[in-house]
Amino acid sequence: MPLEIIRTSSIIRETSKKYHAEGKRIGFIPTMGALHEGHMSLVQRARQENNVVVVSIFVNPKQFATGEDFDNYPKDYGKDTTMLLKAGVDVLFMPNASDIYPNGFCTTVNVMGITDRLCGKFRPTHFSGVTTVVTKLLNIVNPTRAYFGQKDYQQCAVISRLVCDLNMDVQIVPCPTIREKDGLAMSSRNIYLNPEERADAPSIYKSMKHVEEALKNSKLPLRQASRKLNELLLSISTVTEVQYASVYDPESLVEITDVLPHGNGRGPVLIAVAVKMGATRLIDNLLIQL
Amino acid sequence: MPLEIIRTSSIIRETSKKYHAEGKRIGFIPTMGALHEGHMSLVQRARQENNVVVVSIFVNPKQFATGEDFDNYPKDYGKDTTMLLKAGVDVLFMPNASDIYPNGFCTTVNVMGITDRLCGKFRPTHFSGVTTVVTKLLNIVNPTRAYFGQKDYQQCAVISRLVCDLNMDVQIVPCPTIREKDGLAMSSRNIYLNPEERADAPSIYKSMKHVEEALKNSKLPLRQASRKLNELLLSISTVTEVQYASVYDPESLVEITDVLPHGNGRGPVLIAVAVKMGATRLIDNLLIQL
Repeated sequence: MPLEIIRTSSIIRETSKKYHAEGKRIGFIPTMGALHEGHMSLVQRARQENNVVVVSIFVNPKQFATGEDFDNYPKDYGKDTTMLLKAGVDVLFMPNASDIYPNGFCTTVNVMGITDRLCGKFRPTHFSGVTTVVTKLLNIVNPTRAYFGQKDYQQCAVISRLVCDLNMDVQIVPCPTIREKDGLAMSSRNIYLNPEERADAPSIYKSMKHVEEALKNSKLPLRQASRKLNELLLSISTVTEVQYASVYDPESLVEITDVLPHGNGRGPVLIAVAVKMGATRLIDNLLIQL
Repeated sequence: MPLEIIRTSSIIRETSKKYHAEGKRIGFIPTMGALHEGHMSLVQRARQENNVVVVSIFVNPKQFATGEDFDNYPKDYGKDTTMLLKAGVDVLFMPNASDIYPNGFCTTVNVMGITDRLCGKFRPTHFSGVTTVVTKLLNIVNPTRAYFGQKDYQQCAVISRLVCDLNMDVQIVPCPTIREKDGLAMSSRNIYLNPEERADAPSIYKSMKHVEEALKNSKLPLRQASRKLNELLLSISTVTEVQYASVYDPESLVEITDVLPHGNGRGPVLIAVAVKMGATRLIDNLLIQL
């Protein structure tokens, strides 16, 4: 079947209703385009688990603050469409901003607490934009399941909370981070890196892996993990700023400075970092077992 | 069929799915109980327009501020249940607060702008509580149509905006205010009035009607409507405070101080008031054509 491209929310809503009436399960992957293998891994997973796969491409103005890269966000709709067609996606939803935010639009959805931490500290309006648009997209497409990459770990956590808190009838499926062969987490923003930065970028992952190993082998006390991670990241020559780099409770995203939340010295923890390489902001994380 | 009483959101969700799978249309009336003929008019309308009628009773803590009447809000579940049974309601959803707001709940839905005006000025956290719980109830029950009384005109406007902005797949049906024979708008809070206040209360409606007539007969210039209305309301002996009383744009709820928004001297306007009679806060409104 060919890829159906739909540009208005009223039409995709009818399309979705038709599929539901036929008893079909819809897997949905909301994206901002500039697709890479990370996105395609979500598509493959959705393809396996559902009868119909819907992908949206919408560069959501409300999740970018003034001075962020909204205007320059990478776009390649030709390449995106080809990738989706090859992957057997059924429907591509590509709305205009005026369809999503018509005149008079004045509603926001906010998840509190976990949105204040990690990326939320540095992008204070970001998650409100994400939760508002994701609520809208989920309501428009009405999927059975929606797929999100764990590279954006905090986003996954926020959306899971949102869907639970607002009793939305959709299953959120977090999927593993896909990495380049050298370890760099795939991201649409990697295209911003100059050759020197790109060569340095895998060291972000290596730094996290180093701290993981040291923690697991008890060579590094938990309370020194953040200092060690910062030290490693700042030693990368193209890193101009470390926004955050530490060990966090995977649920609350509160920094763990000493004792694990469950108190017995064991359990999952999240190593998460955000750095700037030149002007490019990169994030990555590792969910590890201690 | 008997009235089915459901107390948990997971069960009513499954019940709703079953009805939808049978192709049935669900009419939904969210209430805080203490039902009166106003609520029952919504039930009757829903009964006419749908296959299944669901009523919820949930006194929503989040829409009451500290010092408001949450603890004393009238409750008479026996009487409510009897009324719903007689009216042929199919399902009564009566969740506990811990089902609606479980531990860790941290999401809010906010409609901006129109919530700052009228009641929003005097109850600044009220509408956020309303929009959050209505979003949840609509997601849980997933009705075809939801019915709201225009006695709470601003609430109707806010919920219509919410449903449109978040692309919720439900039709909001605003229904006319039901009044006692003497003109007092029905409200669960009328029970708070002492005999003297109750005797005075119809004068609120009479004051609005007086201003309506005077505006229609061009005996009162629009810019003097608010002064006249305040004068009339303050002349009611048990009225202790007029919180707002004026003429408003029925869409934006911005006060009209002189020229009608459409500029040609004609069009619908809203007369709306909130007063305190002793300790009891009463609101009422009239949508009129000029």
